[in-house]
Amino acid sequence: MTSQSPAGRPSGDEPAAPPVIAVDAMGGDHAPREIVAGAVEASREHGLRVILVGRTPELLALLSEQDAAREIPIVHAEDTLAMHEGALASWRRPRSSVAVACKLIRQGDADALVSAGSTGGVVATSTVRLRTQPGVLRPALAVVLPTLPTPTILVDAGANADAKPEMLVQFAHLGVAYAQTAHGIAEPRVGLLTIGTEPGKGNRLTRKAAELLAAAAGPGGLDYRGNIEGHDLLAGRVDVVVADGFTGNVALKSVEGAVRFAFDEIRGALTSGTLARAGALLQRRALRGLRDRMDSESYGGAVLLGLNGTVVIAHGDSHARGVAQACRLAHDLVAGRIVDQVRRRLGPAGRAPAWLHRRGQPEE
Amino acid sequence: MTSQSPAGRPSGDEPAAPPVIAVDAMGGDHAPREIVAGAVEASREHGLRVILVGRTPELLALLSEQDAAREIPIVHAEDTLAMHEGALASWRRPRSSVAVACKLIRQGDADALVSAGSTGGVVATSTVRLRTQPGVLRPALAVVLPTLPTPTILVDAGANADAKPEMLVQFAHLGVAYAQTAHGIAEPRVGLLTIGTEPGKGNRLTRKAAELLAAAAGPGGLDYRGNIEGHDLLAGRVDVVVADGFTGNVALKSVEGAVRFAFDEIRGALTSGTLARAGALLQRRALRGLRDRMDSESYGGAVLLGLNGTVVIAHGDSHARGVAQACRLAHDLVAGRIVDQVRRRLGPAGRAPAWLHRRGQPEE
Repeated sequence: MTSQSPAGRPSGDEPAAPPVIAVDAMGGDHAPREIVAGAVEASREHGLRVILVGRTPELLALLSEQDAAREIPIVHAEDTLAMHEGALASWRRPRSSVAVACKLIRQGDADALVSAGSTGGVVATSTVRLRTQPGVLRPALAVVLPTLPTPTILVDAGANADAKPEMLVQFAHLGVAYAQTAHGIAEPRVGLLTIGTEPGKGNRLTRKAAELLAAAAGPGGLDYRGNIEGHDLLAGRVDVVVADGFTGNVALKSVEGAVRFAFDEIRGALTSGTLARAGALLQRRALRGLRDRMDSESYGGAVLLGLNGTVVIAHGDSHARGVAQACRLAHDLVAGRIVDQVRRRLGPAGRAPAWLHRRGQPEE
Repeated sequence: MTSQSPAGRPSGDEPAAPPVIAVDAMGGDHAPREIVAGAVEASREHGLRVILVGRTPELLALLSEQDAAREIPIVHAEDTLAMHEGALASWRRPRSSVAVACKLIRQGDADALVSAGSTGGVVATSTVRLRTQPGVLRPALAVVLPTLPTPTILVDAGANADAKPEMLVQFAHLGVAYAQTAHGIAEPRVGLLTIGTEPGKGNRLTRKAAELLAAAAGPGGLDYRGNIEGHDLLAGRVDVVVADGFTGNVALKSVEGAVRFAFDEIRGALTSGTLARAGALLQRRALRGLRDRMDSESYGGAVLLGLNGTVVIAHGDSHARGVAQACRLAHDLVAGRIVDQVRRRLGPAGRAPAWLHRRGQPEE
């Protein structure tokens, strides 16, 4: 059976048109210049179809500088979300670049939104304007941790500060859909971020979530591997780490801060003393590849899963390369039909457990 | 006014006898051999008064190997907490080495307990047997993060998985007492670990805790600096980081795992390629000091604050040096009268807010 997206674009099994990425040109510390440059890079180097959304005169001038005014369409949006604006922003600014990009998705003129704007503002705006998919309780932010050989997905990384146990089960399904689509992992292993590895450890939320996750495990369900702890986040023991948005965000930022701290300390050690200085010169090459892999710009950004449309939130300080990577990620998720996969896992017609049907939104 | 501890040992302003540390000889991955060696090191190299608690024949044999049988007294305990035993262990094993060590403290024959046993077991046993200080809602685990120029204390690092907002205010006071006593910081700065730096960010628990912390700030109160995020844990922005035990434990382990990950990655980078290998040889010296500072054994371990007695929990894999450092930390905390300081901050006679008096335990 072929289902139809709200705007009537085919989303079933027939070959789809190349994904169109609506890029919020006004969000981010280096907007609009680096965003425009990133969109041009995505178009020229990766062959992606992008639309820039923002104030036309500025964007046209920047595109012209790169001789790209005919390559990349612009959709005008007169308003902008400020970097500090959060949840209420979406009501206040219906003509912001993020809101207009969401409108393009709803109309079927675009498939994905890429923004380097404030996470809170983009989450709130896109949740209100794209709405959650049928059966999805809450959208969740997924980020990628640089484990080897394949990355680990952490979900929820901050969209839901106060979550309920059944939401964590959904976050697991969202993360599994992401790991399958973006990383080609057939049966992603799922772990629950908590304290202590034995069953029964944790706080009230995770103890209950662990029960529900165990009940959702098994053939055709989740490959649930039980509790994991903070030190396992980068160990690659599972493919999807589930957490409420508060814990996930604290853990993610703790990891980021600690890695930066360790690199700074090592740089300090490497540049103290003549011998160490000599060594540092020799090692610059060896360290460069590593730093690249740890670099958040390589990953494209966080993905807001569970909405009727694909939303990628790039780091606020993204330069052109980060924006282009975010566009690539958005493209890959759309091409892999992430929205359909989530619908199959969690939608009313999917194999969601009974409690989901009770809570599920009416089918379109 | 001079108050008396339960066992009648003076705890007021007169000069106290040198602290006595009861060392749980049976807890830890390398018990009893490394624990005994650590006690001997504490006695010989740091001049501390220690008592070993455990199975006398084994301990006597190990002490004799080091010709220390007459230096360090042994108190017999026939039972041991297994490393996996948690909260119920304290009821099941009244004759465990941890329980017997607590009895020494209650009787006034020791001032502090040092154990490398399972954190859950030691927390549960010592909480039941030493009891919380008057006015203290819950004891909390404090750990030290290796920031510069002075370390940062994270509290609670795992004793209370489900905490209430008013507990977090107490954790702040416990951490302040620790920072003053162990690190000589006159007015420790306090931050609340949450997501987002603006007031009003976070989950329900931290939003309420932020209000209470702000109300407890000001002259004579806490030097409360507001929200901090995961990336600030190692940035030295505050001296005391307050969290519920679940969040604190996840953050701590995320930091530990990420630092280990970064070092491993760097080691990998340093040993790939001939040039890098040459550099690595040159840098061994520069990196050694850094590794020392990051080494948890340098810090002595976690401290359980808020009980009638000082409890230091060393890492489970501690060797002699780690045990000796834990003894030093326990000594310093007792010598700095940490229990009295907590009493002054939180006890019924202290300047605790009204809600604490209502909840406070009856004065001794």
